[in-house]
Amino acid sequence: MPDSPPLSPDLIARFAAVVGEGNALTDPDLIAPYLREERDLYEGHAGLVLRPGSVEEVSAILRLASETRTPVVPQGGNTGLVGGQVPLSAGEVVVSLSRMNRIREVDAVGRTMTVDAGVVLQRVQEAADEEGLLFPLSLGSEGSCQVGGNLATNAGGTGVLAYGNMRELCLGIEAVLPSGEILHGLRRLKKDNRGYDWRQLLIGAEGTLGIITGAVLKLVPRPMGREVAYIGLASPEAALELLKRAERRAGSQLTGFEIVPRIGMEFTIRHTRGARDPMGEPHDWYILMEISSSRSAEDARETMEAILEAAFEAGEVEDAAIAQSVSDAKDFWRMREELSWAQKPEGGSIKHDVSVPVALVPQFLREAGEAVMAAIPGARVVSFGHLGDGNIHYNVSQPVGADKAAFLERWGEVNGIVHAIVARLGGSFSAEHGIGQLKRDELARTKEPAEMDLMRAIKGTFDPYSIMNPRKLI
Amino acid sequence: MPDSPPLSPDLIARFAAVVGEGNALTDPDLIAPYLREERDLYEGHAGLVLRPGSVEEVSAILRLASETRTPVVPQGGNTGLVGGQVPLSAGEVVVSLSRMNRIREVDAVGRTMTVDAGVVLQRVQEAADEEGLLFPLSLGSEGSCQVGGNLATNAGGTGVLAYGNMRELCLGIEAVLPSGEILHGLRRLKKDNRGYDWRQLLIGAEGTLGIITGAVLKLVPRPMGREVAYIGLASPEAALELLKRAERRAGSQLTGFEIVPRIGMEFTIRHTRGARDPMGEPHDWYILMEISSSRSAEDARETMEAILEAAFEAGEVEDAAIAQSVSDAKDFWRMREELSWAQKPEGGSIKHDVSVPVALVPQFLREAGEAVMAAIPGARVVSFGHLGDGNIHYNVSQPVGADKAAFLERWGEVNGIVHAIVARLGGSFSAEHGIGQLKRDELARTKEPAEMDLMRAIKGTFDPYSIMNPRKLI
Repeated sequence: MPDSPPLSPDLIARFAAVVGEGNALTDPDLIAPYLREERDLYEGHAGLVLRPGSVEEVSAILRLASETRTPVVPQGGNTGLVGGQVPLSAGEVVVSLSRMNRIREVDAVGRTMTVDAGVVLQRVQEAADEEGLLFPLSLGSEGSCQVGGNLATNAGGTGVLAYGNMRELCLGIEAVLPSGEILHGLRRLKKDNRGYDWRQLLIGAEGTLGIITGAVLKLVPRPMGREVAYIGLASPEAALELLKRAERRAGSQLTGFEIVPRIGMEFTIRHTRGARDPMGEPHDWYILMEISSSRSAEDARETMEAILEAAFEAGEVEDAAIAQSVSDAKDFWRMREELSWAQKPEGGSIKHDVSVPVALVPQFLREAGEAVMAAIPGARVVSFGHLGDGNIHYNVSQPVGADKAAFLERWGEVNGIVHAIVARLGGSFSAEHGIGQLKRDELARTKEPAEMDLMRAIKGTFDPYSIMNPRKLI
Repeated sequence: MPDSPPLSPDLIARFAAVVGEGNALTDPDLIAPYLREERDLYEGHAGLVLRPGSVEEVSAILRLASETRTPVVPQGGNTGLVGGQVPLSAGEVVVSLSRMNRIREVDAVGRTMTVDAGVVLQRVQEAADEEGLLFPLSLGSEGSCQVGGNLATNAGGTGVLAYGNMRELCLGIEAVLPSGEILHGLRRLKKDNRGYDWRQLLIGAEGTLGIITGAVLKLVPRPMGREVAYIGLASPEAALELLKRAERRAGSQLTGFEIVPRIGMEFTIRHTRGARDPMGEPHDWYILMEISSSRSAEDARETMEAILEAAFEAGEVEDAAIAQSVSDAKDFWRMREELSWAQKPEGGSIKHDVSVPVALVPQFLREAGEAVMAAIPGARVVSFGHLGDGNIHYNVSQPVGADKAAFLERWGEVNGIVHAIVARLGGSFSAEHGIGQLKRDELARTKEPAEMDLMRAIKGTFDPYSIMNPRKLI
């Protein structure tokens, strides 16, 4: 698909009339922040950034875009890791949801919150907290990512094992179709089956089927106590035993189970301010485990201790450090969250966001490790993530002293090696970051033809003029 | 839409060749069980019942049906309450999934079970139990309903407040499109975002977009202890206070919260063998509350007692009876499950399956009660169900001594009264039973035009010849 033609001054004026001059940006300095993304993998191009203030304005924008066949790129907090939010040519219009940032309603009894799509995730968490409730979606970029983007990518994060993905945390959606039609689906109902659930198609569609403008989110009771520990152990197999034990004992009170290899811990200690080794001796692998109790802090502590005691006795774990204060616990989590960043000073890193059936994670790690090291001797595998969901961020840092650019040129090759193993194990090469630009070709290449055909048919049904986020995902 | 022409002997022979003579039924006596449904609201008609034994046979059936434009009605356990599974004319072919009843795989570590669509729900529950796990979907017809039907209707039941609807309990789906294309989506992954999630469209589509042939189900750790109690209280408002209290204290360990009015308890005691009043004195309302603990029976008991004690002190509850044995607990649940049946001997009953935001349930009950009694003095409102989800089975039994047929003729009128109140409160007239035939006109009449248009477009994309379950849902 070639680039769209640049936007004419007349067309820009028509779009600007919808949102007002002040919210239609064409100045290169002003639109620059909408074109960059944090991994520096993509350089964006766009002729216009629109900042609508209401669902009616979004509707008017899309009606005009459909009429004039103008490509539109929806953008939330611009924290996406696969280039889904990055526009591709001067003929494209970015629609930023940032001004639509109202929390419309909190229902503390029904435990729901109705929000604009542009509300930042952290504000949702804070507003829930003020009501004594919890919105359990939690991920590294929560300080800037927005609810609309969380929905468009079906975001995951660290709480999925207990609370589910964004899809499971959303009850209702308001959205605008490419035609400009508004779908009023802001329902606060736990059970509602009235026909095809189009909301589920928009979730995970990465802005290729329409623009999500609002959502009803599910809140959960806020735990009365939380305990966090770093646990040192010998292998991913041992970690899996610990996971089974913790699930049996804690059930849905097991709210975090993250795996980190020694090298990840080393990178974090080396490059993250304030980070320190949680235990005296090094261990080959670490688990960051969180237990939440609906009852009390003591109850959470008791559960944590009971699990660890039994795991020590069974020889599954080598050492453990339980956070001794709220600030300790925060530090533990921050060390985990900074792990991606801690790789940056170590040079180039080739990323994967894969999932396999939980029971196969050790096999995956072993086979992928051998294959990657055979291809690039000296490569440093930093495989960490959400063991409780089988979702591993399989990042490969360059060998010490290697040429960064030359290493990064092997991105596709390394992806191929890792993803082949993932596929053989029944896994996914796209667990929680989305497809975007980064994995679009791979999706088309690897998805079964029947599924790909169905996806194309769905795309054509929703977006007959292909104006929505072109050259992303599909 | 007129009836389809009857099936020609030649066409019947072609279909029979796919599944074998023994699995192609035309004898009226043999097909009769596939045409009746338990509420006796519908009388089915079909020229042929096919019982395929594999996904390939289902595929061949649908390919032939597409080629010959033959309408097909998928059927699971035939327990649907809205006529979605009932064929409408001699020109229709029923495809029964009953022979596809293998449990294909249980993954105790990843906590998943892969099954054919024709497996009966109770077998899933039992197979999970054998592994020390729980499949938490639980509903009255679990002894005969099938997984495929549970998915096609996005079934709910009593565990939704803790574990979600069927949609949330399903990780993967295998399905056959009307064209005969097989979609291989049996993934055992907790996080997988590779394009549009077509599986979510098939869930809740009531067989109008394709036939679900297999599924990967999510299992949860089996609780180590469970406590069940009947609690007598004065009003739905008091029940809501108790719900809030129980949620705060028990979090996700609150696994059941059902409301029953006194008249429902009376009907049950009168008409259900072995049922007895759980408390000495009558109460206007009852809550059946279940607490599950991942730790121990004592822990569940402690939680139950702590909640009840505090609720007594706050004056929210009048009396409570905690089940003293497993068999007691079973009896308590059975009384709740038999409530629908206990209405039968009381004459005609006009049914509703509605949901409203949880906080609005008391208002709904008050307003609907007044409106119904004004329309039909002497009517006996038996409104019971899943208060924890805002889902009420608002059933209206005829006045004592009234003419049953004359009463049932007012079905549409009473529905209109109740559903208008539901709509005003932002609720749904279809919470967990589906649309089927019963509510198809109402759906078309009440859904927003933009949503209805989108549904029709989706239907056309999946099923261009309209062969799938015609005149149901859409």
